[in-house]
Amino acid sequence: MAVGQSHVRKDVRAKVTGKTRYTGDYSMPGMLHAKYVRSSVAHALVKGIDTRAALALSGVEAVFTHADVPKKVYPTAGHPFSLDPDHQDVADRLLLTNHVRFHGDEVAIVVARDLLTAAKAAELVKVEYEELPVCVTSDAAMAEGAPDIHEGGNIIKSTSFETGGIFSDAEREAETVVEGSFSTPIILHCHLENHTAHAYMDDNDHLVIVSSTQIPHICRRIVGQALDMPWPKIRVIKPYIGGGFGNKQDVVLEPMVAFLTTKLGGLPVKLELEREEGLVATRTRHSQTVTARAGVSRDGILKFLDLDVISNTGAYASHGHSIPMAAGSKSCNLYPKAVTRFSATTHYANIPAAGAMRAYGSPQLFFGLEGVIEEAAREIGMDSVDFRIKNSARAGDILSKTGDLKHSVAMVECLEKGRESIDWDNRKKRYADQQGPLLRGLGVASFSYGSGTYPACVEIAGCRLVLNQDGSVHMQIGATEIGQGSDTALAQMAAETLGVEYQAIHVVSEQDTDVTPFDPGAYASRQTYVTAPAVQQAAEKLKKRILAHCQLMTGENAANLDLQKGKIIQSGDPEKVVVDLSELALDSYYHKERGGQITAEVSAKTRTNAPSYGCTFVDLEVDVEMCTVTIHEIINVHDAGKIIHPLSAEGQVHGGMAMGIGMALFEELLVDPESGWIFNGNLLDYKIPTCVDIPELKSAFVDSFDPTSPYGNKSLGEPPAISQGPAIRNAIWDATGVKINEIPMTPKVLFKHFKAAGLI
Amino acid sequence: MAVGQSHVRKDVRAKVTGKTRYTGDYSMPGMLHAKYVRSSVAHALVKGIDTRAALALSGVEAVFTHADVPKKVYPTAGHPFSLDPDHQDVADRLLLTNHVRFHGDEVAIVVARDLLTAAKAAELVKVEYEELPVCVTSDAAMAEGAPDIHEGGNIIKSTSFETGGIFSDAEREAETVVEGSFSTPIILHCHLENHTAHAYMDDNDHLVIVSSTQIPHICRRIVGQALDMPWPKIRVIKPYIGGGFGNKQDVVLEPMVAFLTTKLGGLPVKLELEREEGLVATRTRHSQTVTARAGVSRDGILKFLDLDVISNTGAYASHGHSIPMAAGSKSCNLYPKAVTRFSATTHYANIPAAGAMRAYGSPQLFFGLEGVIEEAAREIGMDSVDFRIKNSARAGDILSKTGDLKHSVAMVECLEKGRESIDWDNRKKRYADQQGPLLRGLGVASFSYGSGTYPACVEIAGCRLVLNQDGSVHMQIGATEIGQGSDTALAQMAAETLGVEYQAIHVVSEQDTDVTPFDPGAYASRQTYVTAPAVQQAAEKLKKRILAHCQLMTGENAANLDLQKGKIIQSGDPEKVVVDLSELALDSYYHKERGGQITAEVSAKTRTNAPSYGCTFVDLEVDVEMCTVTIHEIINVHDAGKIIHPLSAEGQVHGGMAMGIGMALFEELLVDPESGWIFNGNLLDYKIPTCVDIPELKSAFVDSFDPTSPYGNKSLGEPPAISQGPAIRNAIWDATGVKINEIPMTPKVLFKHFKAAGLI
Repeated sequence: MAVGQSHVRKDVRAKVTGKTRYTGDYSMPGMLHAKYVRSSVAHALVKGIDTRAALALSGVEAVFTHADVPKKVYPTAGHPFSLDPDHQDVADRLLLTNHVRFHGDEVAIVVARDLLTAAKAAELVKVEYEELPVCVTSDAAMAEGAPDIHEGGNIIKSTSFETGGIFSDAEREAETVVEGSFSTPIILHCHLENHTAHAYMDDNDHLVIVSSTQIPHICRRIVGQALDMPWPKIRVIKPYIGGGFGNKQDVVLEPMVAFLTTKLGGLPVKLELEREEGLVATRTRHSQTVTARAGVSRDGILKFLDLDVISNTGAYASHGHSIPMAAGSKSCNLYPKAVTRFSATTHYANIPAAGAMRAYGSPQLFFGLEGVIEEAAREIGMDSVDFRIKNSARAGDILSKTGDLKHSVAMVECLEKGRESIDWDNRKKRYADQQGPLLRGLGVASFSYGSGTYPACVEIAGCRLVLNQDGSVHMQIGATEIGQGSDTALAQMAAETLGVEYQAIHVVSEQDTDVTPFDPGAYASRQTYVTAPAVQQAAEKLKKRILAHCQLMTGENAANLDLQKGKIIQSGDPEKVVVDLSELALDSYYHKERGGQITAEVSAKTRTNAPSYGCTFVDLEVDVEMCTVTIHEIINVHDAGKIIHPLSAEGQVHGGMAMGIGMALFEELLVDPESGWIFNGNLLDYKIPTCVDIPELKSAFVDSFDPTSPYGNKSLGEPPAISQGPAIRNAIWDATGVKINEIPMTPKVLFKHFKAAGLI
Repeated sequence: MAVGQSHVRKDVRAKVTGKTRYTGDYSMPGMLHAKYVRSSVAHALVKGIDTRAALALSGVEAVFTHADVPKKVYPTAGHPFSLDPDHQDVADRLLLTNHVRFHGDEVAIVVARDLLTAAKAAELVKVEYEELPVCVTSDAAMAEGAPDIHEGGNIIKSTSFETGGIFSDAEREAETVVEGSFSTPIILHCHLENHTAHAYMDDNDHLVIVSSTQIPHICRRIVGQALDMPWPKIRVIKPYIGGGFGNKQDVVLEPMVAFLTTKLGGLPVKLELEREEGLVATRTRHSQTVTARAGVSRDGILKFLDLDVISNTGAYASHGHSIPMAAGSKSCNLYPKAVTRFSATTHYANIPAAGAMRAYGSPQLFFGLEGVIEEAAREIGMDSVDFRIKNSARAGDILSKTGDLKHSVAMVECLEKGRESIDWDNRKKRYADQQGPLLRGLGVASFSYGSGTYPACVEIAGCRLVLNQDGSVHMQIGATEIGQGSDTALAQMAAETLGVEYQAIHVVSEQDTDVTPFDPGAYASRQTYVTAPAVQQAAEKLKKRILAHCQLMTGENAANLDLQKGKIIQSGDPEKVVVDLSELALDSYYHKERGGQITAEVSAKTRTNAPSYGCTFVDLEVDVEMCTVTIHEIINVHDAGKIIHPLSAEGQVHGGMAMGIGMALFEELLVDPESGWIFNGNLLDYKIPTCVDIPELKSAFVDSFDPTSPYGNKSLGEPPAISQGPAIRNAIWDATGVKINEIPMTPKVLFKHFKAAGLI
């Protein structure tokens, strides 16, 4: 069985030996280097730009300002194109602006023979600003009389839905109602590889872009939109990527490098962001305020959930309103018995633009949702785990958003496994009556997520398989490997269905929109789920063609043949080898009279969306006097369907947990509410946890097989990062009796709350 | 109609504006540069190599000698692999040798940080030789007691065949027998772009080679053989190419760059030959001696042809014996009434290795064949054209090698058209009785050729078509554009069958063995003929899928729909547009519920080989005293089936004619028969004709349509270069009465012959 085994990752040796080639490892003779001139203020009109000194510097090829760029605004969010004109992403971006909207906005760009000269010249560009009032917070941005950051005002969209029943009825039926307001900060992705891209023209009208992107096919389309070029005249190549976490699910540098090469006679032009630029001038995780209410009956039935999200998308819309809406929609899979009312408002502000980040709004929403669930359980005196088990989705439930009974649902099993693993019941008793400054607490939080974007967006994936001369198989997939292991998982699937060894599948990891089967890219934890049908069908097709060639070669009826372990055998008799696949492959290529290269290609749309589930259990100690938190034990339990590659799955969970802990306890981009200045846009002052900050991470999976996937798998990319925040918050409450409804729960924040509560 | 029109070539704008990206236009950070140490003698054993001074030079990374390379010999000829163990190319090459076999052989290689350092270091490598006797000519190499250039002796192969009847019977029936011995020199390809390649590893066992090659898929296989690596672990990328003419139908640099990167931790290593290296140390056109006899009946029927070829393949076999045998085999299509006996011997010598060059042995063979045909016509007093017309192949003839009656054969029409065009009959009379040192003469020579290599080799080609979002189509083909225009011709075919405009077909010109449909490459004038079925079938398939999606969209029965000019219409009613292809394309990609990316792929084997024909007519003036030749008029007339792109076809013919004239009158690589030293391995001393040396070139095509091709086309890549030599030789004879059976017919050669004939 190729699926379910922890095979050697396709990319692991290249990565650990440093052989992997990233975008920056490709170059071209005569390549020019570009450097942005970024605004030194957060909100202003550009009154004048003096480029003379920059242009006079030897080695400078050109300086462009807003006056030189196309005047057509374009969207940047990495969503597939929609046939519905009302379902397009917000187009609010120009390549360069004369209305700067955050501290670091792109005012001009310098192109020079080398990066150092470009950087020097960028500093020589003098920009004159007419400053405008600054709105940093949601309150400021949505206040009456706030300055318009974009034409049409600061609110991008405000929408709501109700699901699961009549909300007012449920509200009436609730006997206890609890509520809270929860806030989350601006978080940065901090992927290892900075954004970089270069472009050149290989014809007067054929443009090539090499980029560290999660979404090569979408990138192609957006560059076409930005530059008003036919999409097929643009070619996007994606080499290996050093991480993205959603920050490369946005089209950030590509329209600019494309523009520059068209302006510079097709010469290759490269843009590589420095770490500090990348932290503030790409995308961030939305800072949100979640106001949550929950109503329960006396016997512990969750009657309703009322969730309202204010989402601060910053200077540009990027993924904008999709973020809270997607999270809201996926959250409804968790407690389907409750009637849910969900509303969200997304607004602009003079802070860096927020976009997609791992779990796409869910860490923020579940911080509020699982906070108020904890509130409800405690309010009615039920155990936190019992309450969740009582109300969680079960197999057979009608899930209001996926609307389908056919999915695997193992939320309850996750909670039970987590409870047992952390010895919840015994420890609960042990920690019941503590004294002194060191207090232990237990916390739990659940989450639900989706597998892909259907029905919000089209779900399409492609796979092409080629039988090589030695009987191995090349696999081209539109799905993009960004470090998450998709190449490996999809190779396992192909091997499984085809009947060859995992090692016999060679994955063409680089995507090239000229030749790679279409797939919008890596996001929404979609790839193994949505690509699985394409891989499975392509493998079936290839196998059928292989057996047909065997019939040509041997005269044996293909209907009686099968392919197992790289050999064509008589069906049902694996010992009876008809011909080795390598011999058949050579024949198919080189026999003068029969056959041909054997390939198979499938483009498949997915019209289901399997809900995935899980939870975090944490046992921690609060030092009340020092206002610190020490995690003694933390475990994530997941229902991700069939686990394709256990070791990668565990790695995926560990990475997500570290991110979630970072968000809960450490990370926040600090912006001055008065000036919009960014205080800590660097990795010295912006604190991501390092290995000394992260406790031992435990993970577990429950047995589950989703019938809508040929291999039973569901999403696992993003979910591991969702539930640490509320679990830790709930554990701190458990330990100290203090509810902290804001993250990160740094010593400074704990101090404020402990002080207010009279603990210190 | 897309086919038959001179559309704007796909690559023309990029090429004339300098935007085309060739292999040398790609680079990588940290790329190392390699430089060969070449032997200063023509035949020797290497007794010692002192690399210390080279290694001591700053910037030198490594020096490798024969002691460091794999000991397994490999072949280099660009032929597809054969399933028949007796039909493999000769494996006689090591990456570096300690037995140098020509002046310039590869003894060691230096790798350095930059090319200048590598070149300096290469000069510091001291090699000690034990010199061996040198054989340059066929006589010397085949003489008894000649030193063995390779183990097993100097004769590679000696074979013969008879066809068309019983030779001894035909010999008896002949009433007049003529004969002659004809010799041809070593000719160089002189393509614009020198050989260059670079390689790197993107994994511990995955090797990428970027090369200026005509044969990426074969290159992959041969590198695998040379380095004993599984073929699919090697990836060969072919960017645009600046010409090859067969010299890049050999695997010259790729095994070495591949070897070097494996030895240097996967770092990118580049090899770029200088012009002088490329001229002597890649491949050449075989110098041959053709002994030809012809027997005719009194009424002008050619009864037999007896052809014997001695082919000097130089230091290494490369394409070796295939060259004379392929030419012999294709020549049998010309005069099928004659019984033909053909024999050939190929031998090694201490001169640069000969390989494939445009028309692959035919220019040499036809110099003898059409020389002796002229002899026969004159001997029996028949007009040269009349004699050829009488004996040429006609439709319905059984062609002994293709064995097929179903082909188009328009040789007679070519001769008639040429005769008329050059006003043969009138001028013949006018030139009949000339006096003085300036003498006009008329010459004619015919040729036959094949379309591809079947049945000698497998003929396989692939095409993948992708419907883009805007209704245009991306086409991937294994066929390699090397300047000959195949991308354009194949795009025309796809447009024709699919029912879209030519401009709507985007050709992915770059081949990449990881993703490009399999095709052995550009040679044997095969590509438009052999790829046509794959393109046609893929286009039919794509069209069918497009119409099926239209049915999904509109409910209209696909059987009643057709695609014309980019619109889906009701069959038979082009005015009734059901939906535009661009709208259908967007729907197929982005509709959430139906469809998918629409692609089609076909790998097709060709089991026919259409004979193509043509002739050269020339009207020239010989200045007997000055021993010079001035061509007043020269025309090539071709039967190449349906002409896909008239302007490209004309360009192809003009280029071939210039090459043929160069071979006839100017070009020869001079090697000292004593020492093996090369005298003129540079473009100053090796004389290729320039525009001032070449007269106005005329070309014409006869109306012909080969039924074995879906578009009626036959070969036209190489044939234009075949018949200038014999036509000019025959015209000089006509003018002066002197038969010159050697080329190039330089003033020096003419002097020798005119002197011997008593003209001067």
